[in-house]
Amino acid sequence: MLRQDDHKQHISERFNTELEGIKNQLLEMGGKVEKQLNAAVAALVARDTGEAEEIINRDHEVNQMEMRIDDECSTIIARRQPTASDLRLVMTVIKVNTDVERIGDEAAKIARQGIRLAEENVSPTNYIEIRRIGSHVATMLRKSLDAFARLDMELAVEVVQEDTEVDREYGSAMRSLVTFMMEDPRDIGAILNEMWALRSLERIGDHASNIAEHVIYLVRGQDVRHQRSIEEFMDKVSDQ
Amino acid sequence: MLRQDDHKQHISERFNTELEGIKNQLLEMGGKVEKQLNAAVAALVARDTGEAEEIINRDHEVNQMEMRIDDECSTIIARRQPTASDLRLVMTVIKVNTDVERIGDEAAKIARQGIRLAEENVSPTNYIEIRRIGSHVATMLRKSLDAFARLDMELAVEVVQEDTEVDREYGSAMRSLVTFMMEDPRDIGAILNEMWALRSLERIGDHASNIAEHVIYLVRGQDVRHQRSIEEFMDKVSDQ
Repeated sequence: MLRQDDHKQHISERFNTELEGIKNQLLEMGGKVEKQLNAAVAALVARDTGEAEEIINRDHEVNQMEMRIDDECSTIIARRQPTASDLRLVMTVIKVNTDVERIGDEAAKIARQGIRLAEENVSPTNYIEIRRIGSHVATMLRKSLDAFARLDMELAVEVVQEDTEVDREYGSAMRSLVTFMMEDPRDIGAILNEMWALRSLERIGDHASNIAEHVIYLVRGQDVRHQRSIEEFMDKVSDQ
Repeated sequence: MLRQDDHKQHISERFNTELEGIKNQLLEMGGKVEKQLNAAVAALVARDTGEAEEIINRDHEVNQMEMRIDDECSTIIARRQPTASDLRLVMTVIKVNTDVERIGDEAAKIARQGIRLAEENVSPTNYIEIRRIGSHVATMLRKSLDAFARLDMELAVEVVQEDTEVDREYGSAMRSLVTFMMEDPRDIGAILNEMWALRSLERIGDHASNIAEHVIYLVRGQDVRHQRSIEEFMDKVSDQ
């Protein structure tokens, strides 16, 4: 028969395993979404409508994972009654889960724009902007997930800063696409689809930045969402 | 001195008050966001850049409310260790909180497009689409919050169904704006800003629909997110 201490130890080990479990599930989902994103950009550039369809169909797997993770978080809260840093981890998982799922939605939207673009004339832009910004936000997503896996605050701060860069790239890409539209109004339809795809990429950058902010909150126990400027944010982060 | 039963009763009353408290705070935040949305559409239509600036500045109040509500949810989980339907309510508040805050972000984006539009030539469209879809999604938001306040599942189901209608209106508005662009490429800049504002309205419809789904989950204890079709969804909802 177990002594009381052994029993407690046992419970606490099981609890840790459960916490690791939801963390790993979330990282697995993140990896899947990262693949969806890269595949969606590649399918758009290659005008591969078959692959784009598959990406859209696979989105429901991500949705299933999101619901399962939320359920397990509820179960852990109800059964283990976590407090302090354990509770903060569970809250972070719930929040990051939403952002990862919405990145999955945006990847599916990019795949949809890819199908529309494949039906249009060849674009005058050769999708240079989509490829560049696509690869940039995919890196941000990867880094934000790594930061979560290793609770690496420096990496998370890097992601938040990179989002400003992506916003700048996005603004400049949009201006150049407007110029193309004005030069030849027959391209308006195709270029609009490119704009929607870029918009989705810009949103993915925002979500990756949200994930990074949740990681910073988890590590520091301080809410860094909604800092009014990056300076104010960096002040808080460096103020330790 | 309190008897044990009185003491328990007392704790449980305080707990209920706390639960009502976060629910009311969330509804208050929802009311504020609803005002922001209506004001943003009105400012855009009236080309009132001063009002648009104020809307953008007020967004941080919504962000503060979001963080406070999340904090209070954490505190309640840690101190009261809710289970079953109480826990489900807290989880719903956490999820709805994110959607309401993001509607606030979209309202601020609409105000920003309003400022850009005021700097352009008068639009050929007279903002008919923005006014119509704006009023539609504002109604959806109001209904989704009412559904949450009264735990009214029928109203929530109505909101989810209306989102399909908004998506249709949005698609038809976009097609008509593309026609305007092609007719006179000098209007491309202004019309693009209208398109971004419409996109924000369409997202607000999505978020209102998310809120309604969370309410249905709360009432039925069943996750209705990510149903693959409205029919499948209605089947589940009517299957009681």
